[in-house]
Amino acid sequence: MTDFFKDIPAIPYEGPNTENEFAFRHYDPTEMLNGKSLHDHLRFACAYWHSFAWPGGDPFGGQTFERPWFGDTMDLARMKADVAFEMFRILGVPFFCFHDADVRPEGVDYAENTARLDEITDYFGELMEASGMKLLWGTANLFSHRRFMAGAATNPDPDVFAFSAATVKSCMDATQKLGGENYVLWGGREGYETLLNTDMGRERAQAGAMLQMVVDYKHKIGFKGAILIEPKPQEPTKHQYDYDVATVYGFLKDFGLEGEVKVNIEQGHAILAGHSFEHELALARELGIFGSIDMNRNDYQSGWDTDQFPNNVPEMALAYYEILKAGGFTTGGTNFDAKLRRQSLDPEDLILAHVGGMDACAAGLKAAARMLQDGALEQARTDRYAGWDTPEAKGMMTSDLESITDRVLADGINPQPRSGRQERLENLVNRYL
Amino acid sequence: MTDFFKDIPAIPYEGPNTENEFAFRHYDPTEMLNGKSLHDHLRFACAYWHSFAWPGGDPFGGQTFERPWFGDTMDLARMKADVAFEMFRILGVPFFCFHDADVRPEGVDYAENTARLDEITDYFGELMEASGMKLLWGTANLFSHRRFMAGAATNPDPDVFAFSAATVKSCMDATQKLGGENYVLWGGREGYETLLNTDMGRERAQAGAMLQMVVDYKHKIGFKGAILIEPKPQEPTKHQYDYDVATVYGFLKDFGLEGEVKVNIEQGHAILAGHSFEHELALARELGIFGSIDMNRNDYQSGWDTDQFPNNVPEMALAYYEILKAGGFTTGGTNFDAKLRRQSLDPEDLILAHVGGMDACAAGLKAAARMLQDGALEQARTDRYAGWDTPEAKGMMTSDLESITDRVLADGINPQPRSGRQERLENLVNRYL
Amino acid sequence: MTDFFKDIPAIPYEGPNTENEFAFRHYDPTEMLNGKSLHDHLRFACAYWHSFAWPGGDPFGGQTFERPWFGDTMDLARMKADVAFEMFRILGVPFFCFHDADVRPEGVDYAENTARLDEITDYFGELMEASGMKLLWGTANLFSHRRFMAGAATNPDPDVFAFSAATVKSCMDATQKLGGENYVLWGGREGYETLLNTDMGRERAQAGAMLQMVVDYKHKIGFKGAILIEPKPQEPTKHQYDYDVATVYGFLKDFGLEGEVKVNIEQGHAILAGHSFEHELALARELGIFGSIDMNRNDYQSGWDTDQFPNNVPEMALAYYEILKAGGFTTGGTNFDAKLRRQSLDPEDLILAHVGGMDACAAGLKAAARMLQDGALEQARTDRYAGWDTPEAKGMMTSDLESITDRVLADGINPQPRSGRQERLENLVNRYL
Amino acid sequence: MTDFFKDIPAIPYEGPNTENEFAFRHYDPTEMLNGKSLHDHLRFACAYWHSFAWPGGDPFGGQTFERPWFGDTMDLARMKADVAFEMFRILGVPFFCFHDADVRPEGVDYAENTARLDEITDYFGELMEASGMKLLWGTANLFSHRRFMAGAATNPDPDVFAFSAATVKSCMDATQKLGGENYVLWGGREGYETLLNTDMGRERAQAGAMLQMVVDYKHKIGFKGAILIEPKPQEPTKHQYDYDVATVYGFLKDFGLEGEVKVNIEQGHAILAGHSFEHELALARELGIFGSIDMNRNDYQSGWDTDQFPNNVPEMALAYYEILKAGGFTTGGTNFDAKLRRQSLDPEDLILAHVGGMDACAAGLKAAARMLQDGALEQARTDRYAGWDTPEAKGMMTSDLESITDRVLADGINPQPRSGRQERLENLVNRYL
Repeated sequence: MTDFFKDIPAIPYEGPNTENEFAFRHYDPTEMLNGKSLHDHLRFACAYWHSFAWPGGDPFGGQTFERPWFGDTMDLARMKADVAFEMFRILGVPFFCFHDADVRPEGVDYAENTARLDEITDYFGELMEASGMKLLWGTANLFSHRRFMAGAATNPDPDVFAFSAATVKSCMDATQKLGGENYVLWGGREGYETLLNTDMGRERAQAGAMLQMVVDYKHKIGFKGAILIEPKPQEPTKHQYDYDVATVYGFLKDFGLEGEVKVNIEQGHAILAGHSFEHELALARELGIFGSIDMNRNDYQSGWDTDQFPNNVPEMALAYYEILKAGGFTTGGTNFDAKLRRQSLDPEDLILAHVGGMDACAAGLKAAARMLQDGALEQARTDRYAGWDTPEAKGMMTSDLESITDRVLADGINPQPRSGRQERLENLVNRYL
Repeated sequence: MTDFFKDIPAIPYEGPNTENEFAFRHYDPTEMLNGKSLHDHLRFACAYWHSFAWPGGDPFGGQTFERPWFGDTMDLARMKADVAFEMFRILGVPFFCFHDADVRPEGVDYAENTARLDEITDYFGELMEASGMKLLWGTANLFSHRRFMAGAATNPDPDVFAFSAATVKSCMDATQKLGGENYVLWGGREGYETLLNTDMGRERAQAGAMLQMVVDYKHKIGFKGAILIEPKPQEPTKHQYDYDVATVYGFLKDFGLEGEVKVNIEQGHAILAGHSFEHELALARELGIFGSIDMNRNDYQSGWDTDQFPNNVPEMALAYYEILKAGGFTTGGTNFDAKLRRQSLDPEDLILAHVGGMDACAAGLKAAARMLQDGALEQARTDRYAGWDTPEAKGMMTSDLESITDRVLADGINPQPRSGRQERLENLVNRYL
Repeated sequence: MTDFFKDIPAIPYEGPNTENEFAFRHYDPTEMLNGKSLHDHLRFACAYWHSFAWPGGDPFGGQTFERPWFGDTMDLARMKADVAFEMFRILGVPFFCFHDADVRPEGVDYAENTARLDEITDYFGELMEASGMKLLWGTANLFSHRRFMAGAATNPDPDVFAFSAATVKSCMDATQKLGGENYVLWGGREGYETLLNTDMGRERAQAGAMLQMVVDYKHKIGFKGAILIEPKPQEPTKHQYDYDVATVYGFLKDFGLEGEVKVNIEQGHAILAGHSFEHELALARELGIFGSIDMNRNDYQSGWDTDQFPNNVPEMALAYYEILKAGGFTTGGTNFDAKLRRQSLDPEDLILAHVGGMDACAAGLKAAARMLQDGALEQARTDRYAGWDTPEAKGMMTSDLESITDRVLADGINPQPRSGRQERLENLVNRYL
Repeated sequence: MTDFFKDIPAIPYEGPNTENEFAFRHYDPTEMLNGKSLHDHLRFACAYWHSFAWPGGDPFGGQTFERPWFGDTMDLARMKADVAFEMFRILGVPFFCFHDADVRPEGVDYAENTARLDEITDYFGELMEASGMKLLWGTANLFSHRRFMAGAATNPDPDVFAFSAATVKSCMDATQKLGGENYVLWGGREGYETLLNTDMGRERAQAGAMLQMVVDYKHKIGFKGAILIEPKPQEPTKHQYDYDVATVYGFLKDFGLEGEVKVNIEQGHAILAGHSFEHELALARELGIFGSIDMNRNDYQSGWDTDQFPNNVPEMALAYYEILKAGGFTTGGTNFDAKLRRQSLDPEDLILAHVGGMDACAAGLKAAARMLQDGALEQARTDRYAGWDTPEAKGMMTSDLESITDRVLADGINPQPRSGRQERLENLVNRYL
């Protein structure tokens, strides 16, 4: 045990009326909901990068966090791991996620990077075995180092493509070794700063080739988890190719990979793309590519990724509603891709930010489950489309313009609008909150 | 001849130094550029709706324009046509575009709508023959009437689907009759106001079925033009299914229609989707679905469709550059989907807004042609990707992660970043303006 | 009694567990909170325009609502009033608000407009006396008619200024006659479409002159209510002079009217200006110009005024918290400047949208009151600034750079940052919801 | 001479047709425009921070630039100065600007910071004397160091206020010593991350006290330059108090400092606040607080400060038009607050980015001067307001609602709208480009 979190105890569930800020008010991991515990529904994961690797900088200011593990040695990397697993234990989360660059110092070359990754992930293995922690997903950081400034798979320099491919291999190997349940690709530099120096067609082909190799390698090594792409529209780039769920879907269809790859949807990235979180979730479900979520909150009025801990329960209820409609998580889970505000310096802040987020998720999920179980919302939706249940209506789906026109003329079809009842449905949702 | 425009003469080309506001400074339709006249490069079209059907209202104010042809009779519809063709003649544009609802008063039912459309398009035929005007594209207005408030193809009421299908048929028939070079679908209500009452999967299937029928009918009647979808992300809806080019592409792939349908890209819609116009053009070109453009300008700081006449030549040069790289227009053209500001009440405003827009397009196109002919920009792009020309690099496109990793290790590949030279390329572009 | 709402009964309070959608779950008007009833805390008002005058159009579609009172006669204006007061009765709201143009048909000139306004407001007087309804505020619609397209007070044409001044007088007279508690000015056209044709200095001076006359007239007629400006940044204009609370404050200071005029803050307008609602409320309070609120919800992802009924209780709790900190409403109140979605066609929708909004407000207010009474949030804030309570710290507020520098050097002042505890405070807020 | 820029010669003016990218095409410093040289009109300045202190990081990536002067010693600080002055010489700019933190390594305390600042600014003095370079403005960086994370003047900790006051004093002293023509305050942390922990009233009072001390100290030391506040709405904070020009004006009025302090307006900050650059310039002029500009370009579609080099000449013409209408710069100038894209690694990029920006400014200024001299735009504006020249119209500015109403009734005033001619004016502007 490290002493970073000092005497913060494991967070107990104490119910909605507790005044203890170090307790859950809504998240009782053992509470059963439709035959599954909250623990198994939510599948919480902590993100290594924000909580343990981010120094607190922003575009106008440097490091604010002073953590004892900051530095470039493997000893410090191990201390970081110890603190991380201490936090996982305090919070009672079952999963974590990491990039290679979060967990090991940057080496002088690929070989050293890989050796260091192997070393630290071996140590993770020990900590996981001792604690029962599991890996929700692993991923490669192909965006922070200057070699990736113009892209990884989509780089104009084939050597960067090669370096990226090798790095992905090492991260997939590490994920497989640790029993990870998914492997994620976020293409933070796969896009462009200016079209003037960019060949989009070529870069898109490069991205497709890389993705095909990832899928091939997954099968080769017998990785059972899902391969997930995480959409985001921009920032740090002017344009990112994996803009949103719909864009990723078109890309997958183009390369014939829509059966092999799913999406990891982040609330903040949905917002930046101009969509609600629930839109992206529902769309992924309808397209058959829903995988996992990165849970956070984005300030609606900031044009960048604010990655705040979530706290608006009504919004989260709508998100989990779509997830429950998708059948809940299989390999996916609720990963807190959220970071402390850079002024939140204390170890307590790190714990309590997660506690608040977990509680908000639990409250949202429970409201969503009540909504779904009650059925009133789904019934209203079904009623609205009920006209499509007749044979004439169904027949139109495979008919032709002339036949339909004949029927319009013959039957004098002159449709009258019916209320969409939006406000009544919004009131209905509020009933479950 | 009507007397609406009184003594405004046909607009002559007088060159950059003219002080006559009723003359072109850059658009000489006969000027040759790479073996094609400006007239044939630009293929200008006027939009019937904005210039002749829009009364000048906005969400906080009603009609400002008082046009003698406003009203609900077929006589007024003919007067409107006379004025429209008078404007086309004055401007010297070769094409126009229209929705059914722009050109005929709304009838009591589908039969009357169709009869009126036939009547007025017969009259168009006469005016076209007399003037030499051509139809760039026709389309159906499936968004203004209250029956479409919850969608056309994607309506929960199958009767609206039927009415829409029949209406599309009538508009395709009219387009075919008038020799239209394209048929456009803009799904202004194909989306949702709230997910709470919406079944996205079902609505998407309905949209796919309708599009298939449109393509089938095109082939049935031997329509030689292109079928075009016009993307837009939102407004008037909260979400519109044809969000942007990438989204439309995924939709086409899903229904196997990517070889049958192309896109009509509007500058303003690109902006609202968070993309530059040139991005959408370049992407459509790379995906093989570039069709035509709706030329206007959107205020970058307004979150709605401002549909202003274009005037920023540097931006237009970048747009036409992508179009020239796509080989220029085939069936497509430059349609001014732009409207007067509602305070621009005078007939002169209508003429001069188009004159300014046409001149800005011509200036932009000429700059783009110089850039492309000079080749410096393309050369810089080619140089940037030159590393991919080696056999080793090419081989990676069909390789696997392990082989590439072996090579990274064997060759000690450790790539060094190279300048992207964005500012130099921006300076280069300014040289042609 | 009209039969528009048929058998919808007056909405009773039935508590949180009711499944009756025609009942309040949170708004019990008689519930006491810190010695004041919810009725007196919230001071609910309905807006005449959205609910009774708006036909359901948007920029791409026309009228969807078909109301029996739509039309241009005084008889229909009276029917509209009857239905409106019927709705007020059903909802149990104590107040309403109106523009002149909402309540009477447009006349041929100022004299007829005024006569009609007098006639209908006399009728309002009867209905108010019979029902006990009160007028929260009156206002003049100086933006819908085409004569105002280039502004009212700020119009380049002095005749429009004159017409506007006279119209404001007639509306102030009507407000005074009906015992209105405030008079509001929203300058929807007081701004510009393009700087190219605009003299901002002159227009600002015109706006100042008009406001001075309004204040003078208030005193002349002995109007006891408050004069309120409603800020909004844009839409329908490119720029509106009363951009936000801070901008209005600067304007008031410039004309020496900061003691005479307060602000009516709308949630949606705050959002469009890039601010949270609570920011605008807190700022107005700190500047001493807080007056009243227009309660609605704006879609964060739409760049226009969506004027939706509010439903997110956590957000409303933060807003009412600032209002309670300002001492609550005096002349002001909670006016629902919210409109049905245009697909919500049924009379029930109109009632239930308000019911949902009122319930959300009540729930938000009660949470806010708990937060304030509990005091933990205020205590945390006080603690954060506690360092300023020392004489040395206080002294710096009237010191000079040299003295402070001397002290920094002498005392070796080298401040260490302290946690801002944002997430803990966000968790704390969630405890009261 | 350093060898960083190797053999890049001083940039000559070669006229619009040159193909030499290391030459000006529009900026001939000796060219006379209305009796003043371009050199004296534009008063170009380079910003020390972006070009010499910024390592190329962004929120998802670290340092890309590898400059020989990066490091923490005074020797490296001197090397940086040598390279900076070498760049100034190559570009032929007359001015530069700096923050304390740009030019000296951070010390252990205030005393060391000040000593280092003195040392390096003494060295600047030598370089300035040798080269003829002048200081446009100095400023204090009160936002990068972690001690300022919760604000400088507005910090909850009075020790930070004290440290900030002392730091401002040292920077004003340095600016005075070097003959700086202005002193700028940008309050990058003067705002909040969350209202929950913020006392806006108190923080505003602190900011007012600090500004008063700055003004007092200016007079005390006889500084002849202007004190300038630089508005920005947000980023890095959620909200920044100096949101925009209008907000700063209200603040100045509140503290009675509107005659003592002006604004330094940045294009990118205007955009982020929802305004056009020309709006902010025109407003500052009308309010009498126009001071200087930070010239750059912000991507309209990114919600953060992109600080790109400007290149859109039509937009710049509109900006310089407002500046010329303000009488041009007095103490102010055109400071390039613009940074290379982080992929632009080469020394040439640094030079050429400035060359492109300077050329675009010169082209914009010359177009603006032609527009103003020609007078057509101003004439159109004057004509539009001509109705206000009559005694009746002028009299309304000091009249009352009743008198005006009497006149409306007596004269039957019933104004008819007149065209605002926006498109014609936009065409007119394009004539000068």
